[in-house]
Amino acid sequence: MSGLFLDRAAKPIQKLVAYDPGHDLPRLRERFGDIIVELGSNENGWGTSPMAVEAVTRAVRDSFRYPDPLGLGLRAKLAERHDCSEEEIVLGNGSHELLMQLAQVFAEPGDEVIYSRYGFAVYPIATRAVGATGVAVDPFPRDHGMPLGTNLANIPAAINERTKIIFVANPNNPTGTHFRIEDLRAMMRAVPGHIPVVVDEAYTEFADAPGLESAITLRAEFPNLVVSRTFSKAYGLAGLRVGYLVAHRDVCELINRLRESFNVNTLGLVAAEAALDDVEFLARVRAGVLTQRARIAEAASALGWFVFPSQTNFLLIDFGRKAQTFEDALFERAVIVRPMVGYGLANCLRMTVGNPEETDRLITALQEVRDAA
Amino acid sequence: MSGLFLDRAAKPIQKLVAYDPGHDLPRLRERFGDIIVELGSNENGWGTSPMAVEAVTRAVRDSFRYPDPLGLGLRAKLAERHDCSEEEIVLGNGSHELLMQLAQVFAEPGDEVIYSRYGFAVYPIATRAVGATGVAVDPFPRDHGMPLGTNLANIPAAINERTKIIFVANPNNPTGTHFRIEDLRAMMRAVPGHIPVVVDEAYTEFADAPGLESAITLRAEFPNLVVSRTFSKAYGLAGLRVGYLVAHRDVCELINRLRESFNVNTLGLVAAEAALDDVEFLARVRAGVLTQRARIAEAASALGWFVFPSQTNFLLIDFGRKAQTFEDALFERAVIVRPMVGYGLANCLRMTVGNPEETDRLITALQEVRDAA
Repeated sequence: MSGLFLDRAAKPIQKLVAYDPGHDLPRLRERFGDIIVELGSNENGWGTSPMAVEAVTRAVRDSFRYPDPLGLGLRAKLAERHDCSEEEIVLGNGSHELLMQLAQVFAEPGDEVIYSRYGFAVYPIATRAVGATGVAVDPFPRDHGMPLGTNLANIPAAINERTKIIFVANPNNPTGTHFRIEDLRAMMRAVPGHIPVVVDEAYTEFADAPGLESAITLRAEFPNLVVSRTFSKAYGLAGLRVGYLVAHRDVCELINRLRESFNVNTLGLVAAEAALDDVEFLARVRAGVLTQRARIAEAASALGWFVFPSQTNFLLIDFGRKAQTFEDALFERAVIVRPMVGYGLANCLRMTVGNPEETDRLITALQEVRDAA
Repeated sequence: MSGLFLDRAAKPIQKLVAYDPGHDLPRLRERFGDIIVELGSNENGWGTSPMAVEAVTRAVRDSFRYPDPLGLGLRAKLAERHDCSEEEIVLGNGSHELLMQLAQVFAEPGDEVIYSRYGFAVYPIATRAVGATGVAVDPFPRDHGMPLGTNLANIPAAINERTKIIFVANPNNPTGTHFRIEDLRAMMRAVPGHIPVVVDEAYTEFADAPGLESAITLRAEFPNLVVSRTFSKAYGLAGLRVGYLVAHRDVCELINRLRESFNVNTLGLVAAEAALDDVEFLARVRAGVLTQRARIAEAASALGWFVFPSQTNFLLIDFGRKAQTFEDALFERAVIVRPMVGYGLANCLRMTVGNPEETDRLITALQEVRDAA
């Protein structure tokens, strides 16, 4: 950067570092061709919802029209599903956009935003983008049953008069860990009701642990709960950018002030609406992820590595030493996983739970890599 | 709004009013069915680029993958077209997103942003969203050859040490007016080189006036020129949300810090790339708009109304008295146009230049409305 415009930028932007989307997959895809196994971005190994594909194919010729700025078809369907009003749903260009906008709506320079250390990388970025200060609370220790998982009990003590918003994920990315609804309720009782608490449930469709329930069930009790969801994972629509919030209508109204009217594209809207009806696909994906997740976890444990307990479509594995060697060796086998150095977890790699063929390839590669190490 | 969270919002958001996307077209479409003539949003009356439709249809099954975060295929093609480097191109979820981000990158509370009165409504919104102060410079007077058009000569005098960015459009929305490249050059010479000057060229493909050239041609001379373009209008991809900037690489780098990695969806990327190759479609649309624009202008003038000179795919018409009556009467005939009250032009309506059938319907409706008035 030549610096010609850097010192003209707003102060938060001068220090901002962009989100790292991981490996340059489009170029790797070209390089490796069909043999590539892409397990770096927690995409859906079962593809795109067939009903969504059909809906997009029907709608594509209308792309000359602007999208429905209200997204009413999709919002009505989501409201029905979550037993809330359409005014309590706001759509985003992926949940990433909504997380950024939540910070922009509530936080300014001088304010504080709380999240868990080893939470999703977007929370600190959203915080810094608006010039606010991030407060990372300590997670559970490594030897806990939820190693490095969000310790909700640590959050209330971090709150002060500058706290404007709290971000937690359930289950959590990148650890895969989760918390129980009872622990969330206990925390919410200790959080002032005027502070929005965002529970990011991007991976909730892959959960099967007892006690792991959606925060949506607590909304009546705690109007400051904001739940974030995405169509990128279980529904297989990562490329179409659709996420949403279930939140108090005032929170939705504030985001709508900032939201670009046409933030969600037409094909994303119709695809998401169709995907919600694709019950068969969702069930198949969920069952598949649960089966393959267990296979990978068992194989990696058998190879002597620590596998974090996961309620998601990915697994975090601790190799006991710098994971770069393992990442490189997997890469040579055209198996792409996500390095965790940016999260301060240099001994770990995060890998998507893919379909059975992808899992076969991953397990074989892990075994080869273990033998070579 | 109950106010539960309003006073918790960041100060700029507390006062922010969202962009008004116009009539609720999806619901009107349901109500009127096929007889509706939608001329409110300057969409492309010739539909979606057929090559784009084909590209989307081919790509839809890959929607489970995240989009290329670098958008390299499209950026490479745009760089070639505009004879610049890929680092001088940044893609947006529509140019709307880029306009919002430009303000966010450069302006903070206490700063000023300059634009022309009767410029695009997003400039003041982008300004207010970051808590900066908008400075609307006077346009040309109503009796000028470019009535209410951007008077670039008024801009330098509005600049002070708080000025962080300047937005102008060429041709301009909602007036349809334009300025000549020579006038832009003269202004740029009077603007300090550290202030980004954004020239929004959303409608440039419909221009045929002598002296109207893209600001891209002046970039070598003025590195602070930022040119905004869109695929929503001439390419017929409004629903897919693709816009871009041609700008100094430092400006692009600053936006990339803030940009969500996957802000442009996969199908938008492939559609835009294909549309750039769809030379036949673009030529057909352009020729069609020029022909129908002349027809509508002639008919409206003959009916005794003032027609603003347009270099775009819309016409601004001054009815000489409150236009609401005319808008309502057109609405009764299922002809939807855009009211201009929000722009402070209550006597005017803005109407898209549609295809020949849409133009027939519009002209007939205008004649009926005139006779009934």
